[in-house]
Amino acid sequence: MTRPPSFSAFAIPDIPLIQAGDDIVGIIAARAESSRLTLISGDVLVIASKIVAKAEGRYLRLSEVCPSSQADRLATETGKDPRLVELILQESRAVSRKRLGVLVTEHRLGFVSANAGVDQSNIEHGDEAALLLPCDPDRAAAEIRADIKRRLGLDIAVIISDTHGRAFRVGNVGVAIGAAGLPAVMDLRGSRDLYGRVLEVTQLAYADLVASAAHLLSGEADEGLPAVVVRGLDLGAAHGRAAELIRSAQHDLYR
Amino acid sequence: MTRPPSFSAFAIPDIPLIQAGDDIVGIIAARAESSRLTLISGDVLVIASKIVAKAEGRYLRLSEVCPSSQADRLATETGKDPRLVELILQESRAVSRKRLGVLVTEHRLGFVSANAGVDQSNIEHGDEAALLLPCDPDRAAAEIRADIKRRLGLDIAVIISDTHGRAFRVGNVGVAIGAAGLPAVMDLRGSRDLYGRVLEVTQLAYADLVASAAHLLSGEADEGLPAVVVRGLDLGAAHGRAAELIRSAQHDLYR
Repeated sequence: MTRPPSFSAFAIPDIPLIQAGDDIVGIIAARAESSRLTLISGDVLVIASKIVAKAEGRYLRLSEVCPSSQADRLATETGKDPRLVELILQESRAVSRKRLGVLVTEHRLGFVSANAGVDQSNIEHGDEAALLLPCDPDRAAAEIRADIKRRLGLDIAVIISDTHGRAFRVGNVGVAIGAAGLPAVMDLRGSRDLYGRVLEVTQLAYADLVASAAHLLSGEADEGLPAVVVRGLDLGAAHGRAAELIRSAQHDLYR
Repeated sequence: MTRPPSFSAFAIPDIPLIQAGDDIVGIIAARAESSRLTLISGDVLVIASKIVAKAEGRYLRLSEVCPSSQADRLATETGKDPRLVELILQESRAVSRKRLGVLVTEHRLGFVSANAGVDQSNIEHGDEAALLLPCDPDRAAAEIRADIKRRLGLDIAVIISDTHGRAFRVGNVGVAIGAAGLPAVMDLRGSRDLYGRVLEVTQLAYADLVASAAHLLSGEADEGLPAVVVRGLDLGAAHGRAAELIRSAQHDLYR
């Protein structure tokens, strides 16, 4: 009898609303422990970017934002609050697509997404504040991983996940915007298929797959499940950063 | 102590190479049983489109394909075999992007993907044959689901999965091109976030998330794991078809 490859995923319950300066690692570890979901080495901890950003204090009050003339123009075209558009532009390198209700940009971190991840949902100040994405999600993932190693003695991979829409397809998926301790892109180029034919190009978006798996549990609405543990994956030794998941403009046919 | 949401996934081992006319349901059920991974109601069975296509006998010999002049032109532009390009065009409604080594089309089923899913890997005839995608993956998923119900008395959701690249991001992910017995798109519009603020638009690409989770186990190269069981998800009662995951051209900013 062959032992088949398998993995499991569980959400860590009862994580409180995160405030600026909160110790995310301590909170997650304590909530896991008290739910008898103790972390073990080899786990992947998938953390919603939102709570990382909150702990980093990445809030801005809209009343303190002064929109540029470009932001004013784009606000008219998209029907969005000019102050929100100003924040989106500040977080972006370029506008990718715009339409009434839609503003898609190339984020300063490289990925293409709606509203540059600037978010008015699930934050305490309602319509009058916005939450930016974490400053450097790859660095945040590496720091959380190192912090867990130091404090708990565990070798845990960390993904900072975000929710992205997609070209061509309906619905959002989970993506990795920060990663540490696991492959971000798994390169299968040169592998052979079942008949020995060499595969030409096969790269798996490994960290995005893990983020999407976690997304089945964390959802997006009122579940309040911003941390998911994925256990049992064969992570290998070739670790990468989420930045590797960004396709460069010259290799992208849809930019 | 709250019982947290969780799920598990396992690949069904030792599935033999599938031939045209093979009874996929019988083979998968037998392999699961002999590995003590007996299916239970509520499971999602994620089946690689490749074995469904093989069972449907969707092979074509390239020597029997007569390329059109359009196929000849595109073959020169992309560096691909004109006969392969002819098959890709026959399976497509439109060419989306082309470049040396790359031909992205809008498949007759609506999704945008490389080579219209026409595949020369993992098939027995090597370079001289190609395998098309299943004829109607949503129907195939519904038939497999009904067949399992009839023969095993189990209520199993079924996804026919494919491997797609993406605009903007490096690496392939799993997507659902056929689905039955689970939501394809999970609509969270109108849900409230943690602070009671109504979410404007949130749709989860639920079946794609499940396909991507399965992809962590099935991979693409020589693993030979074309069937993965995902267990423990809360599927709800609102079932959909994978066709719902196709964004219509008029709602797509990147077509």
